[in-house]
Amino acid sequence: MRMYDLILKKRNGGELSTEEINYFVESYTKGEIPDYQVSALLMAIYFQKMNKRETSDLTMAMVHSGDMLDLSEIQGVKVDKHSTGGVGDTTTLVLTPMVAALGIPVAKMSGRGLGHTGGTIDKLEAFKGFSVEMPTEKFINNVNTIKIAVGGQTGDLAPADKKLYALRDVTATVDNVSLIASSIMSKKIASGADAIVLDVKVGDGAFMKNTESAKELATEMVSIGKHIGRNTMAVISDMDQPLGLAIGNALEVEEAINTLKGNGPEDLLKLSLVLGSRMVMLAGKASTAEEAEAMLKETITSGAAIEKLKEFVKAQGGDIDCIDNTNLLPKAKYVVPVIAENNGVVKKIHAENLGIVAMELGAGRATKESKIDLAVGIVLNKKRGDKVEKGDTIAYIHSNNESLIEKANEGILKNYEIVEGYKNDIPLIHEVIS
Amino acid sequence: MRMYDLILKKRNGGELSTEEINYFVESYTKGEIPDYQVSALLMAIYFQKMNKRETSDLTMAMVHSGDMLDLSEIQGVKVDKHSTGGVGDTTTLVLTPMVAALGIPVAKMSGRGLGHTGGTIDKLEAFKGFSVEMPTEKFINNVNTIKIAVGGQTGDLAPADKKLYALRDVTATVDNVSLIASSIMSKKIASGADAIVLDVKVGDGAFMKNTESAKELATEMVSIGKHIGRNTMAVISDMDQPLGLAIGNALEVEEAINTLKGNGPEDLLKLSLVLGSRMVMLAGKASTAEEAEAMLKETITSGAAIEKLKEFVKAQGGDIDCIDNTNLLPKAKYVVPVIAENNGVVKKIHAENLGIVAMELGAGRATKESKIDLAVGIVLNKKRGDKVEKGDTIAYIHSNNESLIEKANEGILKNYEIVEGYKNDIPLIHEVIS
Repeated sequence: MRMYDLILKKRNGGELSTEEINYFVESYTKGEIPDYQVSALLMAIYFQKMNKRETSDLTMAMVHSGDMLDLSEIQGVKVDKHSTGGVGDTTTLVLTPMVAALGIPVAKMSGRGLGHTGGTIDKLEAFKGFSVEMPTEKFINNVNTIKIAVGGQTGDLAPADKKLYALRDVTATVDNVSLIASSIMSKKIASGADAIVLDVKVGDGAFMKNTESAKELATEMVSIGKHIGRNTMAVISDMDQPLGLAIGNALEVEEAINTLKGNGPEDLLKLSLVLGSRMVMLAGKASTAEEAEAMLKETITSGAAIEKLKEFVKAQGGDIDCIDNTNLLPKAKYVVPVIAENNGVVKKIHAENLGIVAMELGAGRATKESKIDLAVGIVLNKKRGDKVEKGDTIAYIHSNNESLIEKANEGILKNYEIVEGYKNDIPLIHEVIS
Repeated sequence: MRMYDLILKKRNGGELSTEEINYFVESYTKGEIPDYQVSALLMAIYFQKMNKRETSDLTMAMVHSGDMLDLSEIQGVKVDKHSTGGVGDTTTLVLTPMVAALGIPVAKMSGRGLGHTGGTIDKLEAFKGFSVEMPTEKFINNVNTIKIAVGGQTGDLAPADKKLYALRDVTATVDNVSLIASSIMSKKIASGADAIVLDVKVGDGAFMKNTESAKELATEMVSIGKHIGRNTMAVISDMDQPLGLAIGNALEVEEAINTLKGNGPEDLLKLSLVLGSRMVMLAGKASTAEEAEAMLKETITSGAAIEKLKEFVKAQGGDIDCIDNTNLLPKAKYVVPVIAENNGVVKKIHAENLGIVAMELGAGRATKESKIDLAVGIVLNKKRGDKVEKGDTIAYIHSNNESLIEKANEGILKNYEIVEGYKNDIPLIHEVIS
């Protein structure tokens, strides 16, 4: 088999066979095929697309390019959740204790964030002493006993995906739906998921800027799941404004705690219930979304969810006093209101730009080496559709550095669009695909 | 400027600016841009094409990537001829003495052949002692005094083209008309041509398999010429059967000598006159093709052309006795007729395959290191449209190795299509584009 022939075939609109896809992924991972041939193939794929069979084959070839986590000792159906990324998204911290409280195993591998805000691990470190470092045995034991554990990414999972992604990133071949879908799915499958719930974000603050492309990606990933025998569902949710009110690590943890106590923002709770209910269904614990949502809500009213969070944080060495008293979480020195300069209705909150404002306050990493300040960020006080009068507080800046406040204030004002007569018509949940 | 942005722009159907094309060609030649980004750009160009301005800019950027031959000391308009390659093509050896005999400077850089048959230099070495090695001064002096010289490629001409071609060759990005056209034109312009006559071959034995693609390439190259101020004309000629009768180095030289004496095959003479007349016109020595053709024919009848060939070969150290007596040229030990096995009319002679048969007899190079046997090859006795009866000789095999004859005989028979009732309707000259 020659890589040249694969490039030519795809360039001419042909379909790559399973053997051809395996050959190219394997040989590339081993360094036996040069980057310049792979980038030519990727560009040909960009133009000629891949069909569902090819996309599934690419996914599995990337899964088999490295280690696969063996979670077979965990009892029950392991359902993983993945979000395509957004601003102020705390759903993982909200829904995993709820789902675990229903006896469904949550075995999550997470990463640190590179970008606007921290990843799940960064956020969890707001619990003093919390650690994701533990032997696999303990990880599995925790899931089997308390039904929830979050580990750092270990092993060499889907190395082909890492190598291909790095190449796509510098050759303008990232945004092809088959390549994006197979990249996401290969990582989830290598992490040992039996079933997968996907949260595909759409809007200004997401990678997918419109519902058509979000739907295309969601459909593609669900199709991969079907092809390879992993039950997969996808929710298309709004990221045209930040989710919830908090943007920043400890601020989002506080918001998650409040939500589990029944006092969270409506949109965060709603999305957590929609995603969580699909996890419950895929785990075989409910047959309808309504039934599953009712079960999840009950974990909040009964207090089971917040107790599960405590159990989980404690099991991984974290301080749980802050769950009862959120004032013990890391707090910023300065909390400064952002004051509206005119009357109207909030038409848009540019999520991505607010993420950047939060990052500049220290909530995210500008480079891989940056250290995150867990305490800082933004808390919104007005969201899309809210009426605003001149002088109202639209948001709060949480900062540990006085000199950064003015620029953050300007940035937030600039990214709130306040107009007369706007009526919010963008739904939180666009569609559920299964 | 970032290469990434150029790839993205072209991928999305944008037009690269002159500055962007110069940047990428310059930086790539210097090794400052990696192959994998360039191959992604080339594949994007394959799909999104380049317009005429971009193609001209690419051509000139490749010209400026290395040395340019300075032929300014040569008096008159230097017209070069380029053929896109075929089998049994001896036009260079026929038309250059004719053109030079009219006082038009012929300053030709040629190469050795890699493929079925030798290049012009290989063929000229059939004249014992002939050499293309000489100081530039002598080269220029020869052109100024006797109007003709053939040199080997010196200097670092269009290194960007070499580097890009090598990359295209392994990434399935060769066959894009802008990339092919700019590659050919950049080499001609770097070689110092003021005006260019192109012979674009079409048919089974050529790179361009059909008239549409040949016309597209010819039009593109003529357009580049216009854009950059080099008068360019293109002739689209038939390569659906070999040109002339001889395939092989000394055999083709003998054929060229016979043609200059007025005894050559009709098609070789005709194409040489068509191409040569365009060289005469571009040199400003005639205003119509008819006038130019008449002038060229006169060089044959007057003996001026064959005298010019002698002058030229002698000036470069070659033996000229073989011009008066072609029996002195290298001769093969075995000359074996190929006998027709049935009656009919020759419908097709697969030019490329016959080229391979000739190569296997030793007339061409299978690898860069192969040594050519100047004497061997094939001489056709029947061409397309000719009537054949069982037992007729359709061709002769010239071989120095008895053991190769049987396979060559089989190969020739297999590649002659002889059918009942065929009438030849493929013209030698499809079109002239200017």
